Formats: sequence, structure tokens, C-alpha cells
Amino acid sequence: MAEFDFLAKLHRRLRRTTPTERLIVPPGDDAALVQLDGNQLLFCSDMLLEGVHFDLAPATPELVGRKALAVNLSDIAAMAGTPRAAVVSLALPRAGGEALGEGVMNGIAALAAEFDVVVAGGDTTTWDGPLIVDLALTGEPHPRGSVRRGGARPDDVIYVTGPLGGSLRNGRHLRFTPRVAAAQLLHGAVGIAAMIDLSDGLAGDLRHVLTASGVGAVLEPAAIPVHADAAAREHALTDGEDFELCFTLRPEAALRFEAQRAAFEAKLGLAPVLIGRIVAAPGLVFSDGSKVPPAGYVHAFG
Amino acid sequence: MAEFDFLAKLHRRLRRTTPTERLIVPPGDDAALVQLDGNQLLFCSDMLLEGVHFDLAPATPELVGRKALAVNLSDIAAMAGTPRAAVVSLALPRAGGEALGEGVMNGIAALAAEFDVVVAGGDTTTWDGPLIVDLALTGEPHPRGSVRRGGARPDDVIYVTGPLGGSLRNGRHLRFTPRVAAAQLLHGAVGIAAMIDLSDGLAGDLRHVLTASGVGAVLEPAAIPVHADAAAREHALTDGEDFELCFTLRPEAALRFEAQRAAFEAKLGLAPVLIGRIVAAPGLVFSDGSKVPPAGYVHAFG
Repeated sequence: MAEFDFLAKLHRRLRRTTPTERLIVPPGDDAALVQLDGNQLLFCSDMLLEGVHFDLAPATPELVGRKALAVNLSDIAAMAGTPRAAVVSLALPRAGGEALGEGVMNGIAALAAEFDVVVAGGDTTTWDGPLIVDLALTGEPHPRGSVRRGGARPDDVIYVTGPLGGSLRNGRHLRFTPRVAAAQLLHGAVGIAAMIDLSDGLAGDLRHVLTASGVGAVLEPAAIPVHADAAAREHALTDGEDFELCFTLRPEAALRFEAQRAAFEAKLGLAPVLIGRIVAAPGLVFSDGSKVPPAGYVHAFG
Repeated sequence: MAEFDFLAKLHRRLRRTTPTERLIVPPGDDAALVQLDGNQLLFCSDMLLEGVHFDLAPATPELVGRKALAVNLSDIAAMAGTPRAAVVSLALPRAGGEALGEGVMNGIAALAAEFDVVVAGGDTTTWDGPLIVDLALTGEPHPRGSVRRGGARPDDVIYVTGPLGGSLRNGRHLRFTPRVAAAQLLHGAVGIAAMIDLSDGLAGDLRHVLTASGVGAVLEPAAIPVHADAAAREHALTDGEDFELCFTLRPEAALRFEAQRAAFEAKLGLAPVLIGRIVAAPGLVFSDGSKVPPAGYVHAFG
């Protein structure tokens, strides 16, 4: 989920001390890809803090637990991986902590069952602070290889998996469906070139893809799908916490996808939307010359 | 590390929703053992909270980071596994958070390099609360299989890997060496029957082994190695945070070990101490009839 410049600095230091042949995808992509002896492992974590990432009312403990797993599932989805096993660390307020913890674990367990994820264990402490839920998730890479942010090339076609904006307004950020199945199916069928999950807003997250790939993009402003919850069109670009996927396909892969779109949509239960294309010139612009707003992530409250 | 009854209840619920054929060692052992498609994975996590598990001064950020990894290494060691990859979630206080985060990650990176662990990524947030470090660690099971708490049988011989007690007094709980190498070497050479890492004190942790194995134990009170930091003999049984291993060997394995003890000690740099034996009758007693104190874990401050 949201990281910042400081973390990038730490990661540069870590790369100096970590055996690099074992860390195939360094931190910066949505999940890390680690080379173990006989196999590869996707690995990520997210910490949700009461008062920062959620408030209890309107969020329930069950929804907080659900979200702790869902944001990690979205990170594995962004690499086209298959989520496998999770561990959960909880810090519970002394007053009412047991009921809170039960609610959180119930929310995690229900979504874990849907995605066939093993909740393997973890750590629990009571303290005088607020509720904290940290979830770490491992996954298996796609047999076709993991999709990264840096794989986009000029002439790639850019898609998003669904309408954007206003996720915080009606609590969609607590109830979203991680796009694990969509990423796996599309990558297996036509090969995805580059991908990211939209946690900080399309304007910011797509720029991560462009920077990592050393390319630019031209978006069709009218093509960007705006969610009914979004207060205005611009919010589809700058609101965070949509947790849809933004991905690029090579032109030939896009044609193969479009030729089979109806079957994909029926199988996926969602309709990827073509929003623009990758170009060689750096920068993110609209095709009509209007200005793409800067990244504008708003922290989740609700 | 420290868990409590409430967590056991949650884990019972999780077992109802988790595909059990995939979770070989259910939560309750030091690390979980997960069956993936082609291989098995050890997986654990620990969350360190400022004001609960440490205070900044006397602990430094580097020592907090070191400990966050070390307690997880100790959990993997208790299964005789090989630690492989970690992710780190940080919550940093707004004031001075960047320096704190750097210190924590430096402490993690230094110990990770010693143990050949990949620090793969994670998540960082700033907030108005105290420093929180959560670390999740994966490992590979020992080729001979993972050692569990429930493997002890009557006539097994009980050992600890080093002197106990007073770990909080001089900050040993921040600087201990996880017994990864000792566990791997001994399990490979003679086969360890049951094992646990001593995070809550021998009296409590050995009782976990006895309960999981459905057996009892008789300890030789004079044999229990008391650390120079321990305020009194009883502290070797009730102080927490020693992070030595307590393990049992079948009688024939113990004889094989004792016959090669000098070579093991030279190679391991430590001297396992024989402290008693497993018996069929439930309960933990001293051979002289005196009473073994109840579990007395004291939370780490320092």
C-alpha cells in the first residue's frame, strides 16, 4: 500500500546487504519476489492502524480484518500471483480487545476461505494503544512469470479493471474484491506487460508504472471509468483505495483480448476498460491536451 | 513469542475455515508449517510495540530492529528450520520517524546478513503513536522434518542450549543469538524429538511441550544452568526472553549426542545442558520433590 520516499531510501540500503541474486523483484513493486532454493515466493505485508487507515465506526472489526487481507491480496494480484498463506500480528486495546480480535480474525478468515488462503498463525499483544492489524502474505508466482511495474513499452495499451473514485465515500475501500482471478486469467491468456494495483489513485500509480518502465502515457479523458461514488470526474484520477488493477498489454495481446472480450467479461464478472496507450516520451498527458492532475492520495478514514 | 488463551481460541476457529491439509503444523507451535503446491514453508511473525516490548532508551532503534528479526529467527530455530525471507511493517512516530526507521532497518539488515535472510519489502506509515515494528519471516523446513512441541515421549532426555534468567537485566534480550545453527546441526546429526524456544521462561515453556506431548517431566534442580545476570536461581525458571532452546532427545539420540559432545560444542560455540527427563505421569516436578514455580513471564522493558 502507501509507501513514501523514505522507504525507497531504506530499500536502497537493504539491497546493499541482501544477497541480490535471491531478491528477484526488489521492493518497489507491489510484492517482493524471492528466490528460494527450489522455488520462488511472492511476499508482502501491510499494517493497518486505527485512526490512520480506519476508524472503528464506521468500520467494524470484521471489515478491518477483511481489509488487512484484501490489500495484501491486491498486492499479489498486481504481480498476477496466487495468494497462499498469511500470518497476522494484532495489537489489541486492553478494553474490549478480545471481542475486537475475534471480529478481526473472523473478517480475515472469511475472506481467506474465499481465496483459499491459509491463515497460518501470528502474534497477539494487548496494550494501551489503538487496534493495529499487520498481515503478511506469501504467494506463488504465475507460471508465465510475475508481472512488474517496469514492463511497459511504447504502443502498449493501458487498461483498468473497473470504475474509479469515491472509494472512501460509501465504504467500498473496506469491501472491495481483490482482482486476483482477473490478473491470473488475463496473464495466462494473453500475457500482461506491466501492472500495479490502484491504492493511491490512477494519476499517482500509473506514474509509478511509467517511471519504472521509462516511458510516458496518453490517456483518453472520456474513457476513464468514473465510479458512481466519485464526487467528480477528477476523483477517478486522484482518489485512493480503489484497488482496481491498472495494466498494459502489447498491441497484439490487446487485440487477442478484445477479440475474446465477451468471454473474459463473463468469466471474470468485470469489464476491463481501455483508457489510453503508452508512448516513448516521458510524462502523463491527456489526448485533448488538458492537464492530468498530480497524484492526490487521501488517507482512508471510514 | 508471547501468545495467550484468547489466541488459542481464535486459532481453533481458524482451523475450521482453513483447508487443514495445507496447514501441517497448526498455530501453537513456534512457527506454522504450510503445505504449498510443491514444497513446505515455515511462517511466523512478531510485533514489537514501544512501551510494551521495549523502551527507546535503553533500547536503540538498531537493537529494536535486531530484536524484531531475532525473535522470529528463534521461532524458526525452534522448528529446526532455515530462515529465508522477511517483510517488515513499520509505524513511525511523526517526530523523528525517519531516523528511527533508518535505525530499525539497519539493525534488521545487519542481523539478516549474518543469517543470510532476504529482507524483501514491507510497508511504512507515519502516525501520532509510538514506534511499532512487525516482522514476518518465512523459512524452509529441515530435510529431516520439522521439530514440534508435541514430539516428546517418556524417557526422552531434556536439554537447554544455555544459561537462563535475568535476560532483561543487562539487555541480553536485545542482543541474544538465535540458536538456528545449533538446532539444525543437532537435528541433522541425532534427530530432535520436541523443541520450543524459551521466550516466556523455562517453567512455562517446558509445560507447553509437556501439554502438547501428553507427558510429564522430572527436572534436576541443580542441573538447570543459571545465567550470571539472574538475580536468583528461581529466575532461571521464570524469567522470560532467554531465547535459548529447550529440546528433548530420545535416549539413544542423547547417547549419540553425548558421545560426540566435544565436537558439537566446538562447532556450535555453546554447550547444551542436560536438565531432566520426560516421564509418562503428567506434571512438571523436581527430582528432590521441591515445587517447580508456576510460569512467570515478565514483559520485556529495556
